[in-house]
Amino acid sequence: MEQIFAYERLLVFTEKIFKKIGCSDKDAITAATALLSADLRGVDSHGVARLIGYIRLWEANRANTKPDIRIIHETVSTAVVDGDSGLGLVVAPYSMQIAIEKANKAGTGWVSVQNSNHFGIAGYYALKAVEKDMIGIVMTNASPLVAPTFSVERLLGTNPICVAFPAGDEPPFVADLATTTAANGKLEILQRKSQQAPSGWIQDKKGNISTNPHELKDGGALLPLGGDREHGSHKGYALGSIVDIFSAVLSGANYGPWVPPFPAFMSMPDEMPGKGIGHFFGAMRIDAFRQASEFKKHMDKWIRRFRAAKPIHDNQPVLIPGDPEHEIQIIRLAKGIPLLHAVVEDLEYLGEKLDVNL
Amino acid sequence: MEQIFAYERLLVFTEKIFKKIGCSDKDAITAATALLSADLRGVDSHGVARLIGYIRLWEANRANTKPDIRIIHETVSTAVVDGDSGLGLVVAPYSMQIAIEKANKAGTGWVSVQNSNHFGIAGYYALKAVEKDMIGIVMTNASPLVAPTFSVERLLGTNPICVAFPAGDEPPFVADLATTTAANGKLEILQRKSQQAPSGWIQDKKGNISTNPHELKDGGALLPLGGDREHGSHKGYALGSIVDIFSAVLSGANYGPWVPPFPAFMSMPDEMPGKGIGHFFGAMRIDAFRQASEFKKHMDKWIRRFRAAKPIHDNQPVLIPGDPEHEIQIIRLAKGIPLLHAVVEDLEYLGEKLDVNL
Repeated sequence: MEQIFAYERLLVFTEKIFKKIGCSDKDAITAATALLSADLRGVDSHGVARLIGYIRLWEANRANTKPDIRIIHETVSTAVVDGDSGLGLVVAPYSMQIAIEKANKAGTGWVSVQNSNHFGIAGYYALKAVEKDMIGIVMTNASPLVAPTFSVERLLGTNPICVAFPAGDEPPFVADLATTTAANGKLEILQRKSQQAPSGWIQDKKGNISTNPHELKDGGALLPLGGDREHGSHKGYALGSIVDIFSAVLSGANYGPWVPPFPAFMSMPDEMPGKGIGHFFGAMRIDAFRQASEFKKHMDKWIRRFRAAKPIHDNQPVLIPGDPEHEIQIIRLAKGIPLLHAVVEDLEYLGEKLDVNL
Repeated sequence: MEQIFAYERLLVFTEKIFKKIGCSDKDAITAATALLSADLRGVDSHGVARLIGYIRLWEANRANTKPDIRIIHETVSTAVVDGDSGLGLVVAPYSMQIAIEKANKAGTGWVSVQNSNHFGIAGYYALKAVEKDMIGIVMTNASPLVAPTFSVERLLGTNPICVAFPAGDEPPFVADLATTTAANGKLEILQRKSQQAPSGWIQDKKGNISTNPHELKDGGALLPLGGDREHGSHKGYALGSIVDIFSAVLSGANYGPWVPPFPAFMSMPDEMPGKGIGHFFGAMRIDAFRQASEFKKHMDKWIRRFRAAKPIHDNQPVLIPGDPEHEIQIIRLAKGIPLLHAVVEDLEYLGEKLDVNL
């Protein structure tokens, strides 16, 4: 049921598709590279499988492919960016670049973004900072799917946080995590396979624990990291809230239940206290704190100590955040990217519609 | 088994105790105020109950009561502070003040701290930024009690993260959370009452799930937020790691298994790759992003919407992070602070020893 595609082939295809919907040459390659980074890192739910979703957003006039992205407020270490309703895949690289430039001058750079759309995976942008010997920090809010502790209402997105640190000889440390027990992509896999979800991932519309992966369609909700109050779900709820506030209340985007949906068939919220969805980017120059070579030597020591931690089971060593994705990327660059049949069909459909060869 | 003390009485007592061990007048009131803020906010495990622990650190020559706290590296938005082995209760206020001053000039200020000791509760320092219409961010590492996912070894502390945002008419949003399923203080309560811990809080020395609250004394470990891999413990482990790296790898403090213990009877680690324990402080001026009045208006809207979320049970409304602590503080300022008999005994012992009336 899978077909293997070379990375280059998917990249060229995606770039052409973005050009066909009106992106400039530069924006098309920027967006395609950002989108495909998810496939390379093994986050299949957020990669080329979503290309059709972005095209549908454009068809619904919810994504501007000729945006005038600009800074609307700034200080030496901060900026607010208005994405002009552009693709998040274009707005986010622009905004992370500003954070990096601010960090070059002031030691750190912080950019909150309004009026954007979904941007793929956070880790890709954080790694842009790591390339410059900086710490990269990325957050975004998203359509509401998650209920706060004690509630039946969906008021938060899966609101990821990514923090990436450069290392020396070791690959970078990259923690890129949804602030829920399980990412929505994992639930989609269970839905396709008609398998039960573990207890603690979702609740039904009345707030009862559920193991039915289709519960969200019937008014249920994803649960914050922790699962229930006894296991710290109030902390997952707090973390998701922090992401929402940094990304949207600070920038002037929509927050909480008023974040616009990614699926174009879903209607827009009745009330919108801000513009589009919001992101947040940070870049911190290592040498604004200590010599980068010193820091990286200690990061290597940190990583090696944790990787060598005595395991519970001999066949399951302790993992360093970012290691699994790093390894998948090496394999997929060499051997290609496996796509599910349903995804290939979507791409073929898009290719025919927009006259681009897959 | 409890006795009520007026806040002022405990504050004056604590201040005098700190003077007796060599703190300057200024440092003694700074440290006493920071320590007592935990009692006021209802975090009884981190307040005056720990005063004896700080005194024992001093007796063991592990805390310097006449520190030369200083900046050893800085840029316009960053600094590294050497705490000179001072009490965290003195080093932390100094460092947060620098973050605030940097933010005044550069929009944001970021301070990583080496060579410090335990500092009480993170929330107190974050609220110092909130008073200035800034976002406050505080982290600290701590003695290793937590096992990474898949390991039996204790390599991380309970490593808290605090993020606090100012609001308008509403109290500030203050998320102050250990990156574990349950804080160590909650386990101590179960130990005293000889009650079982919920599954997902701790594991035994072989990595099996345990409900025995005394398991830590027998080589067990606290579990990262999430509890197990299926419920996202790799995310809690990643968050605790981020705190460790910001606090210690970035500053030059000790990290991972090499963080010095708070209890003075525990021996120091054999190897020490840095100095003391590490903290991290951030202050972000709201008006470096948007008008503070606009932000606070939207924070009020955010808070009111979440507080009004439809509850699962009518008698348990959705809570806003910081609300419970805010309410306890009002009550305790008016009616006093209840202390367990064992804590009062410790204070009386300290008073006799150092010739200070309780």
